[in-house]
Amino acid sequence: MARERQLSRRSILGGAAATGLAGVALTGTTASAASAAREAREADVAVVGGGLAGLTAARDLVAAGRSVVVLEARDRVGGRVVNLKLANGGFTEGGGEFIGPTQDRIKALADSLGVATFATYNTGKNLLYKDGTRTPYATDGLLGSVPPIDVAGLANAAAVQALLDDMATKVPVDAPWTAAKAEEWDRQTFETWLRANAVIPSAKFLFDVACTSIFSAQPRELSLLHVLFYIAAAGNASTPGTLERLTETAAGAQENRFVGGSQQVPIKLAATLGDRVVLGAPVRSITLSGSKYLVAADGITVTARRVVVALPPPLAARITYDPLLPADRDQLSQRLPMGSIGKAIAVYDTPFWRADGLNGQVVSDTGIVRSTFDNSPPDASYGALMGFIEADEMRAFDASSVDEVKAAVLKDYALYFGDKAKSPTSFVLQRWDNEGFSRGGPVAYAPPGVLTEYGPALRRPAGGIHWAGTETSTYWNGYMDGAVRSGERVAKEVLAAL
Amino acid sequence: MARERQLSRRSILGGAAATGLAGVALTGTTASAASAAREAREADVAVVGGGLAGLTAARDLVAAGRSVVVLEARDRVGGRVVNLKLANGGFTEGGGEFIGPTQDRIKALADSLGVATFATYNTGKNLLYKDGTRTPYATDGLLGSVPPIDVAGLANAAAVQALLDDMATKVPVDAPWTAAKAEEWDRQTFETWLRANAVIPSAKFLFDVACTSIFSAQPRELSLLHVLFYIAAAGNASTPGTLERLTETAAGAQENRFVGGSQQVPIKLAATLGDRVVLGAPVRSITLSGSKYLVAADGITVTARRVVVALPPPLAARITYDPLLPADRDQLSQRLPMGSIGKAIAVYDTPFWRADGLNGQVVSDTGIVRSTFDNSPPDASYGALMGFIEADEMRAFDASSVDEVKAAVLKDYALYFGDKAKSPTSFVLQRWDNEGFSRGGPVAYAPPGVLTEYGPALRRPAGGIHWAGTETSTYWNGYMDGAVRSGERVAKEVLAAL
Repeated sequence: MARERQLSRRSILGGAAATGLAGVALTGTTASAASAAREAREADVAVVGGGLAGLTAARDLVAAGRSVVVLEARDRVGGRVVNLKLANGGFTEGGGEFIGPTQDRIKALADSLGVATFATYNTGKNLLYKDGTRTPYATDGLLGSVPPIDVAGLANAAAVQALLDDMATKVPVDAPWTAAKAEEWDRQTFETWLRANAVIPSAKFLFDVACTSIFSAQPRELSLLHVLFYIAAAGNASTPGTLERLTETAAGAQENRFVGGSQQVPIKLAATLGDRVVLGAPVRSITLSGSKYLVAADGITVTARRVVVALPPPLAARITYDPLLPADRDQLSQRLPMGSIGKAIAVYDTPFWRADGLNGQVVSDTGIVRSTFDNSPPDASYGALMGFIEADEMRAFDASSVDEVKAAVLKDYALYFGDKAKSPTSFVLQRWDNEGFSRGGPVAYAPPGVLTEYGPALRRPAGGIHWAGTETSTYWNGYMDGAVRSGERVAKEVLAAL
Repeated sequence: MARERQLSRRSILGGAAATGLAGVALTGTTASAASAAREAREADVAVVGGGLAGLTAARDLVAAGRSVVVLEARDRVGGRVVNLKLANGGFTEGGGEFIGPTQDRIKALADSLGVATFATYNTGKNLLYKDGTRTPYATDGLLGSVPPIDVAGLANAAAVQALLDDMATKVPVDAPWTAAKAEEWDRQTFETWLRANAVIPSAKFLFDVACTSIFSAQPRELSLLHVLFYIAAAGNASTPGTLERLTETAAGAQENRFVGGSQQVPIKLAATLGDRVVLGAPVRSITLSGSKYLVAADGITVTARRVVVALPPPLAARITYDPLLPADRDQLSQRLPMGSIGKAIAVYDTPFWRADGLNGQVVSDTGIVRSTFDNSPPDASYGALMGFIEADEMRAFDASSVDEVKAAVLKDYALYFGDKAKSPTSFVLQRWDNEGFSRGGPVAYAPPGVLTEYGPALRRPAGGIHWAGTETSTYWNGYMDGAVRSGERVAKEVLAAL
């Protein structure tokens, strides 16, 4: 039975959406076959969730000599990080894909696993599509990649950006709720603050796009304090976070990509854990029995002294806990919703926009896709345009057919890159809102009043239950780097407690 | 087996917290005995949740000749409505207890079950406790029950109240997101709006107290649009809602109480349903199999053509659905958190404050309890002071011992009513945040950006799954009356679909 649930090349990579890139080759069955029977295992630590956070925690716990079982709901590892197969034999990335400066922990992890990085394609001009007009603009001028809007808007935007960065320096990343102005910043939406500060419409537009691009949520949904925390978290212990590092490609969070696709990192990490990783095992209940926890998943129950829950808070809330979680932890998990996000990837024989002097990056005020990237492979053997579908735009299309979404996306791509964009050789759509084990993405965010009242419950263990996941990270919260950091932090926490 | 899970006098009334007032006398066992085995039933409709919404739906479905099974997680019916036993043989109410004008549907239901009402004690003066000063004030003057604050504050408060009521008339209760100014009102917190309008501190104080009293949430947590909707909903089809009807005792939502306690209504309603109501049966999954749903609870699975989920949205999200719920419904349920609420009832030999000319109602700016009511029985055979513990105050005490809460409550009661209040004969505490099948109360509320984006998903059925619960009601949303209305509405919806 144990062998049947081991990590398998097939199950790691999933079904129709799989790519054939894994370096591991273990045997195994699919998740559905396993859920009919019930296996029992014992370990020092049960880890719930086989994304980067859970796998990193498991790695560190195993390195310290502890026994670990990782229970992953899906038939693949990686959580919000996934490679998707293309019809042309290539692959693309349906979830987190970029890595940038100060993201030291995902970099160290990738290095240790032999996963290299390459620069995101960034040669040529960006495009601004606004008020029906398409304007290419250089990214290497004095203004960096600030789009060509009116001078008053630019001045306003620069001032607002500087103000946000300055306010963010006043927010301790490990306890945003202790900022001197935490209450003031947590009692208003980011929208309210932007309307008072980004008073020139073109400047407001830039921050709206930045907000939906970063959070996959509209400014009206977010607490100002959460936005400031998130900016502060876009750095590391020696480098303060800035808004620019969140939004930029060069020298920003979108600077580099992973050779073989970002899911190579969790796949290779899981391979080092062997049959400690159990796929197709959604955890339904965590029950304290004497001094041990019974962690019951479909098909398998793990008995463990400690439990690491490495899920986004709204999903962690769907597990049945006995004893109940403390009220503040439960209510926190009712108050951190997932953003609304999809990625649409259109594949072409060539990255034809490059010949037009374009880098494939768009900022737009219209359509279903309002920001894009050139997601072609490093050898440019084919072209791929990746578009984010975010917040209001994603919600409007969550229930639409793939063909309907495709038509809307290609209409936008044609406006941005010309008629050639209308005829991709293939099209891939990943809608995280519709994934049962995500129900949104890329990350859970805090509306007003949440961080100041519930922040301390984010990382505080509940008995022997410890919390990980990128939402618990002090740096690069919401990113792959934050997930890895949270796994490293929680492993230390558990080791100290064991 | 079926007999073993029937409604029982013992299980309806719960364990230690039970009152012995039920008019029903059926036999049965406790929930825990039943959960070890798995029973199977078939019905036209499975109802999830045995609160007023689910029971009302079941009543109407049965009346139309349909077969129904109601699955209730607790070992009693009533949900957020519960009678609590007192040491002196009496009882008090731990959840919803009041009924007022325009709450026609709970009134009709209570009438049909022979549950009478009586006037909430409201003779004598209210108390304002503010800035360390205790000021009795009359409730029958020109100003109604407006506390004695400075004239500028009163004028400001009156203007703000009139403005809120006027804005509320612009919010359609069946679709707040269609209000002409829905976007403007949904992009800001109630706190932001109050700071711009309730500019006199004493006026702001009154609205803060009103807000926490109504929603058990702070103004910074709520969307302005949600507040306006809630005001609009405090009426019926012929009587527009007003803020005053939410806050007042005389002619307001706190005007009357139920003889025998509010739980008499669901208890007697459940009795008419007999063994259709199954207690101790928390539903874990709802799975479509062919044209029928398998509704799996601990110990019992019901196969049904239609399902009514009559739970608060954040709890409905904890059920595993197959097929998955539509994204908008799932994300809605991530975005409607429960308020934070407790009730503290101190019992005395007599309602001694009445002799001091006080009606037992306090509005305070300090302490754990900031609003109180005289909860003595109609014959005043003993005295009971009930205090609400709400929002920030409840959260601060969610993890405290009952003794710690009791000490804090009695300190407040002594400030308000004198030293006699320090020595109750008994003390009862109900903390809804700590209840596994509530995790907060009295109702789920909408932060900014939720109603405009997700409102339509509140009542839209997902295949054969229909939604009830007070959160889905157009009138008296959040109240017992709204729960009954939602049950009546959903029964019609299901009957039309069957």
